[in-house]
Amino acid sequence: MSEVRIIPLGGAGEIGKNCTVIEQGDDLVVIDCGLSFPNEEMPGVDVVLPDFTYILQNLHKVRGVFLTHAHEDHVGALPYLLRQASVPVYATEFTHALIRSKLEEMTPVGSLQLETFKPGDVIDAGSLSVEPIRVTHSIPESCSVAVRTQFGVVLMTSDFKFDFTPVDGKLANITRLGELAKEGVVVLLSDSTNIDRPGWSASEREVAAGLRAAFAEAPGRIILTTFASQIHRIQQFFEVSAEFGRKVVAVGRRMEQNIEVCARLGYVRIPKGTQIKLEDARYYPPEQLSVLMTGSQGEPMSALVQASKESYGRLRIQEGDTILYSARPIPGNEAAIWRTVNRLFRLGARVIYESPVPIHVSGHGHAEELKLMINLTRPFYLAPVHGEPRHTWQYREMARAMGYPEHRLFAMEDGVPLVITENEAHLGEPVPCGRILVDNGGNPGVTEDLLRDRSNLAQYGVVTVTLVVDPEAGDLVGEPILSHKGLHDPDGTVLQAASQALCLELKQFRKEDVMDPDTLRHAASDVVRRAIFRQGQIRPLVVTTVVEA
Amino acid sequence: MSEVRIIPLGGAGEIGKNCTVIEQGDDLVVIDCGLSFPNEEMPGVDVVLPDFTYILQNLHKVRGVFLTHAHEDHVGALPYLLRQASVPVYATEFTHALIRSKLEEMTPVGSLQLETFKPGDVIDAGSLSVEPIRVTHSIPESCSVAVRTQFGVVLMTSDFKFDFTPVDGKLANITRLGELAKEGVVVLLSDSTNIDRPGWSASEREVAAGLRAAFAEAPGRIILTTFASQIHRIQQFFEVSAEFGRKVVAVGRRMEQNIEVCARLGYVRIPKGTQIKLEDARYYPPEQLSVLMTGSQGEPMSALVQASKESYGRLRIQEGDTILYSARPIPGNEAAIWRTVNRLFRLGARVIYESPVPIHVSGHGHAEELKLMINLTRPFYLAPVHGEPRHTWQYREMARAMGYPEHRLFAMEDGVPLVITENEAHLGEPVPCGRILVDNGGNPGVTEDLLRDRSNLAQYGVVTVTLVVDPEAGDLVGEPILSHKGLHDPDGTVLQAASQALCLELKQFRKEDVMDPDTLRHAASDVVRRAIFRQGQIRPLVVTTVVEA
Repeated sequence: MSEVRIIPLGGAGEIGKNCTVIEQGDDLVVIDCGLSFPNEEMPGVDVVLPDFTYILQNLHKVRGVFLTHAHEDHVGALPYLLRQASVPVYATEFTHALIRSKLEEMTPVGSLQLETFKPGDVIDAGSLSVEPIRVTHSIPESCSVAVRTQFGVVLMTSDFKFDFTPVDGKLANITRLGELAKEGVVVLLSDSTNIDRPGWSASEREVAAGLRAAFAEAPGRIILTTFASQIHRIQQFFEVSAEFGRKVVAVGRRMEQNIEVCARLGYVRIPKGTQIKLEDARYYPPEQLSVLMTGSQGEPMSALVQASKESYGRLRIQEGDTILYSARPIPGNEAAIWRTVNRLFRLGARVIYESPVPIHVSGHGHAEELKLMINLTRPFYLAPVHGEPRHTWQYREMARAMGYPEHRLFAMEDGVPLVITENEAHLGEPVPCGRILVDNGGNPGVTEDLLRDRSNLAQYGVVTVTLVVDPEAGDLVGEPILSHKGLHDPDGTVLQAASQALCLELKQFRKEDVMDPDTLRHAASDVVRRAIFRQGQIRPLVVTTVVEA
Repeated sequence: MSEVRIIPLGGAGEIGKNCTVIEQGDDLVVIDCGLSFPNEEMPGVDVVLPDFTYILQNLHKVRGVFLTHAHEDHVGALPYLLRQASVPVYATEFTHALIRSKLEEMTPVGSLQLETFKPGDVIDAGSLSVEPIRVTHSIPESCSVAVRTQFGVVLMTSDFKFDFTPVDGKLANITRLGELAKEGVVVLLSDSTNIDRPGWSASEREVAAGLRAAFAEAPGRIILTTFASQIHRIQQFFEVSAEFGRKVVAVGRRMEQNIEVCARLGYVRIPKGTQIKLEDARYYPPEQLSVLMTGSQGEPMSALVQASKESYGRLRIQEGDTILYSARPIPGNEAAIWRTVNRLFRLGARVIYESPVPIHVSGHGHAEELKLMINLTRPFYLAPVHGEPRHTWQYREMARAMGYPEHRLFAMEDGVPLVITENEAHLGEPVPCGRILVDNGGNPGVTEDLLRDRSNLAQYGVVTVTLVVDPEAGDLVGEPILSHKGLHDPDGTVLQAASQALCLELKQFRKEDVMDPDTLRHAASDVVRRAIFRQGQIRPLVVTTVVEA
């Protein structure tokens, strides 16, 4: 047991698919198992997973997967891991409740080992032990995790802010974080997402004031869109709706599910008589109705986006509606969000997406909160994660300003172990790591080559060429047949030029090349590609089929 | 001459491709002729143009195209119009200088009729007259345009802000705007882009303070990225560089061209000895160098993006570089911009994209400036343009708060004429209008159907099926041949399932269906599509070729 290794399989140098291995001798714990969402360079990709190879190679060492909170970027890849390996999963009752239905749907029955913890519990994991510590974040029951190793505590903050007036009244356990400092925190792996926001984040509770201001002016229905997991926001929306004498309707599969589960377990307290079913909404005038809806990120299949396109049968946007965008755009979603907002305005709704009194606050601490975490826990090494290079770079700059020398700061990358020994720490040799792309049908394994082909197909389309060869005569039969999809060739000149060039070149082909289907296929494709580029300056993919007849 | 018609062919209910027709009897003027850039739903599209059908149908009436300033969304479509029609083009000397090379490249020689105006000139246009009025904006020599009609002045603000300390010292002609009110402004078509920003925009001159703060702290080279047309920004960068004893290098085709043209015409005044050539930069230490670079929007082929990928031969990013993002992301570009920023940080550069002292200010007036324009010109009707529905909606709300009754406010849409008569104004019957998509090869006419095919190709790829028919025997010869591109089928089961289903179904086909190539093709494609969906829940395009042999 000469060293402790901390290996991010996801979530280092990026925001998303958080998954970190902490390893000591024959024991290994996994903190979080999240997914990320594809960007515009990944068409046909549904979700992105960490590469679990390292976990699977060391399966005999795995003492458990520990979930810090129920956001998709911390739990969403779990079903894919559990399909390949049966390992115990530790989480709070709340996190389990939110993910259970999906887990049961996607994982072989009987192989689920779900263990429940409370913040403050200490869970044995072989020579390691794991202690979840309550923090505040944009979803209930969020935890930092202290992993006790031979060299001291490895502390993963996971996502956090210091909210001194949390909606559920459950404060971050600041004292316990301070006690860890006395015990000795060898390394802090800190959230760094909001390092570029100065000062302190606003309390979630301040959103209520923003909601009240919007409610006071709304002539008709009020529709709030946010993440379905934003339970505290949802709680406050129910409360303010009740204050203003409005009934609340939940719309969108995930929104309805989460409210049902959370209300049942007491994580959402719905004022009596405030929630009604969508089908009963027609008995109330618009000014007595509030609606909670999914779709804040412009997701094409979400309730709000469908309603903005007038293709959501269950609810129609109408003049006088006030729509509150209570979420921050995830980078890359802006264009889709603005298209939705514009469609909503066109339908006569008023959309509030910026307001003097905020209707959204971040769940991640700003710069001063990140400093407070360092001050409390006094770690020897600092390794910012849960941030892109721009965030982790600025975090390290902040740490330098706090007096940290260079050798105590680490720029983490996915797959690169931070190795801690008795006397020092260093970055080790990379382990197998990468991103696993899952297609829209749920099948993992979309390759980078495939994405490159798809990008070409999207830009230029595809041209198919069919050649018929008479294997006995050793000759081509008839003319080549060219066809296309997605090619911009309004007057047919591009395909015509390709066809002419091909006919001409085919005459020059040597008999032995014609008789070898592979050679013929490649040669024909080359001729067509070149002719098309010369004619139209475009580069479609070319698929040539050689038929022997 | 019973009515005046104002017809936006672009730029109403959107930001981009500004082009407005103003028509009275037998006379018609066109204000601006801009393009817009494709969004992520338009793969393979290079630029988007207004539909010029209405102009071409009324070519005998056209008295001229008047350009308000040299931004692409106001001038970029002009070469495409001039290819189809020879009309006089009026602009300032500066605007002509910036667009001339492109115009000459793309337009038949000899057909260019470029006329130069100065703000304050009054240009006859048949029964109409056109008076450009100086305003301030993020490019030199920007104008609003007053078109005199029988019912009073139609005033198009075009893009403007009220900058009381413009970098070039050329103030907006506020007095003239006020005089128009006395004459009678029948309708104001106002910029509305920044309606959701309260108060007043900062002066362009304030950027110098932000630059100085950044210069004071930069340990090595300073690289500023902005639009190549941001001449005032470029001017200030030269000045601050000179103050700090730095030499300036311009990198990027457009940046180099614009600086050359503007310096020659006196629109950029380069402090003596400050500009050097890129190849001479190696004679200076990094702390004596400044660089101006294109690529602020994450454009894949731009100098900065290429440099961030270490694939720009002329300049390498190095540790100690400070990179100033002196531009606001155009919605939709955020993801590409952040990817670039992160790559730059990874290369050891420091990127400043947000700063307490701004290094970018908007060229469009905020809410109070929009109100000032109304107060000055006192128009009877208000028709906000140069904004998405979210902007024009909020502009109309502001106008109501200023006392405008509903019948004096118009929600403009592309192609819908605002018809002004002696006693009233109303929206008329739509004229031919739409968006013309130009492909990467420069060819207009990409259709919506083609985009749909491309979107499918990108998501799922394409499967080709080849069937050989013996026309004499009336029978299929051999097995169908299936191939694919961009299909996610790692173990081949999808294609195998499709092949099996097709073989099975082909046996059931009636002889007359096999003998009819169209029927056979459609039937085979259907079978393959269904089999693939059942197997993999994916929907690739299927191209079937029937060969007679």
